Amino acid sequence: MRIYDIIAKKRDGFELTDEEIAFFVKGSVDGTIKDYQITALLMAIYLKGMTDRETVALTIKMAESGDMLDLSGIDGVTADKHSTGGVGDKTTLIVTPIVASLGIKVAKMSGRGLGHTGGTIDKLEAIEGFDTALSPARFIENVKKHGICVVGQTGNLAPADKIFYALRDATATVGCMPLIASSIMSKKLAAGSECIVLDVKYGSGAFMKTAEDAEALSKMMVDIGTKAGRKVAAVISDMDTPLGFGIGNSLEIKEAVEVLKGENVSDLKEVCLTLAANIIKLAEGTTIEDARTKVETALSSGAAYEKFKEFIASQGGSIEQIENTELLPSAEFKSEVLSPYDGYICRMNAEKIGSASVILGAGREKKEDKIDFGAGIVLHKKTGDFCKKGESLATLYTNKADTLKSAEKCFLEAISFGEDEPNRNELIYKVV
Amino acid sequence: MRIYDIIAKKRDGFELTDEEIAFFVKGSVDGTIKDYQITALLMAIYLKGMTDRETVALTIKMAESGDMLDLSGIDGVTADKHSTGGVGDKTTLIVTPIVASLGIKVAKMSGRGLGHTGGTIDKLEAIEGFDTALSPARFIENVKKHGICVVGQTGNLAPADKIFYALRDATATVGCMPLIASSIMSKKLAAGSECIVLDVKYGSGAFMKTAEDAEALSKMMVDIGTKAGRKVAAVISDMDTPLGFGIGNSLEIKEAVEVLKGENVSDLKEVCLTLAANIIKLAEGTTIEDARTKVETALSSGAAYEKFKEFIASQGGSIEQIENTELLPSAEFKSEVLSPYDGYICRMNAEKIGSASVILGAGREKKEDKIDFGAGIVLHKKTGDFCKKGESLATLYTNKADTLKSAEKCFLEAISFGEDEPNRNELIYKVV
Repeated sequence: MRIYDIIAKKRDGFELTDEEIAFFVKGSVDGTIKDYQITALLMAIYLKGMTDRETVALTIKMAESGDMLDLSGIDGVTADKHSTGGVGDKTTLIVTPIVASLGIKVAKMSGRGLGHTGGTIDKLEAIEGFDTALSPARFIENVKKHGICVVGQTGNLAPADKIFYALRDATATVGCMPLIASSIMSKKLAAGSECIVLDVKYGSGAFMKTAEDAEALSKMMVDIGTKAGRKVAAVISDMDTPLGFGIGNSLEIKEAVEVLKGENVSDLKEVCLTLAANIIKLAEGTTIEDARTKVETALSSGAAYEKFKEFIASQGGSIEQIENTELLPSAEFKSEVLSPYDGYICRMNAEKIGSASVILGAGREKKEDKIDFGAGIVLHKKTGDFCKKGESLATLYTNKADTLKSAEKCFLEAISFGEDEPNRNELIYKVV
Repeated sequence: MRIYDIIAKKRDGFELTDEEIAFFVKGSVDGTIKDYQITALLMAIYLKGMTDRETVALTIKMAESGDMLDLSGIDGVTADKHSTGGVGDKTTLIVTPIVASLGIKVAKMSGRGLGHTGGTIDKLEAIEGFDTALSPARFIENVKKHGICVVGQTGNLAPADKIFYALRDATATVGCMPLIASSIMSKKLAAGSECIVLDVKYGSGAFMKTAEDAEALSKMMVDIGTKAGRKVAAVISDMDTPLGFGIGNSLEIKEAVEVLKGENVSDLKEVCLTLAANIIKLAEGTTIEDARTKVETALSSGAAYEKFKEFIASQGGSIEQIENTELLPSAEFKSEVLSPYDGYICRMNAEKIGSASVILGAGREKKEDKIDFGAGIVLHKKTGDFCKKGESLATLYTNKADTLKSAEKCFLEAISFGEDEPNRNELIYKVV
């Protein structure tokens, strides 16, 4: 078999066999297939597409290209969630303790933030002492003992995805649905959980700009996971505006704790309850209504909050900072962004708001950048709200005073005002 | 400007600007654009095409990516010819002395053979003492003094083409007309001649399998050359059967000398006269009929043969071997390929016959391979000929006796027999 012939076949629009896809993935990882051949094939895939069968085969081979986590030693049902990334997205911090408090085992590997989106690992590291780099043995042990553990990606998980993603990112082949689906699902399959709930965002702050695209991607990923023998569901939600009010690492821990303590942060709480209920439904085979009642009770009874504190403590994090979130890393400087008009907020460009938070120090532009845990944004108004001229739209926090001006400019560019109250997208578009 | 955006633009089917094309070529040569980005763009070009404007811009930038030969010091009109490659194609050896004997200045860089096609430089090196590696100064001096010089590619001619070609060859993007046209024409433009006649072959032994494709490619190349300020014509000829009867280095020199001495090797002579007449027409602005008369006279008067000997001598080659071609490198072993049937030859797969000659030692499979100048094939029958069972179809020559069996097998696979006399393609399909 020759990669040349495989490239030519896809170039001419034919379906690749499972053997050809296996040859491509193996050769890409062992170096016998060169970068310049991989990108030629990826561009041909981008332009000619892949059938569902090809996408499933590609994903499974990518998952198998490195370590496949073995969670079989853990009693009970294991569950994982994945978000396609958003601004202010702290759902993992809320959903995982809810389901863990209901006996589901959460063995989760999370990522760091890059560009306008944050990462769960960075957020957790805002808590003093919290260790995101546990050994594989300790990871499994924590899941067994506490029902929940969240660490950074360790080991050699789906190395084919790392190779393909870096090359796609440099050659304009990122935005291709079969390649997006295989990238996400290969990592989830390798991470070993039986139940996987996908939080697929659409809108200005997300990768999928329309609900239709988000639905197509969701169906593809559910199909892949199901064919690979997992239980999978996808919740499609609006990310045309940031989720919740806090953006930035300490600020998001704080908001997550508020929700876990029972505060009603409307859109954030609703997305978290939907995700958690879908995990319970998959894991226990109950109706969605029963699952919803269970997760609501877990939250209102305080069980989820207790599980969260147990989880933080089990990885060395400071409980004091959770019980009093004022002790989390803070910012020396702050300023208010004042509304320049009287009017309704018609639209918030979540991506741009994410960029404003990066300017303040809350995120990274490059992998090497250091994060300022105290930096970020607290929104006071969201899409649909009316504001008077001079009223505060948001408070910006930073430890570098000289970033405030350009962050404010960036933030204001993200806001569109209008005279009439705008129609808002439904928060949860669909569950697939 | 970022290569990422250029790839994305072509991926989406848009036309690139001259500046974007210039950026791509420059970055590919200076290494700021990576191989894996080049191949992604080449695949996008393969699948989305290029407009004529883009192809012209790409070709000119590729030509300008290295040395541009300056032939302005040479009095008179300079001319070049290029063949898209064929089996038994010794036209350069005949056409260039014909036009040089008529006062046209031929400053030609030729290539070596690879795979089933031979190269002029290899053929000339079959002649004892012939030097194909003259210095640039000596090259120009020879053209001035003798009106003709043929050397191997020297200097840094169209380095962008070398980079692109090697990558296309590894990523299934060779067969793309704008990329073929730009590859050929960038080298011709860099080589500096005012008049360029292209010998575009079609058929089983050629790169373009149909006359229609050959015509489209020809029009594209003539358009490029004209827009770059050169006089260009393309002769489209049939390469569904080898040209002439001799295949292999000494054997082709021998056949070229026979034609120059006035022997009528029908298809070979006709192609050479057509090419030479078109060079004269371009260079002198005469009608094709007048040009044809001139080149026929140059051949019949012996002027072309005298010029050929002057040319060989001027580069140190043995005149004795030209005057008595039996002195050229020969082969120790030979065998006859006998016809297994009574019948007409309906088709000769020129590519496979070329491969048989490579097996005998006349060509290279890999760049490093050494050539056996004496090896090769002399055909006794060609497409349309009737042969009796047991009659000799061809004589195989080699210095490695153990190659004869597999070369014979390969040769016979190339021949299709039939009961009825086949229709033959017209030798010259069209001049563009």
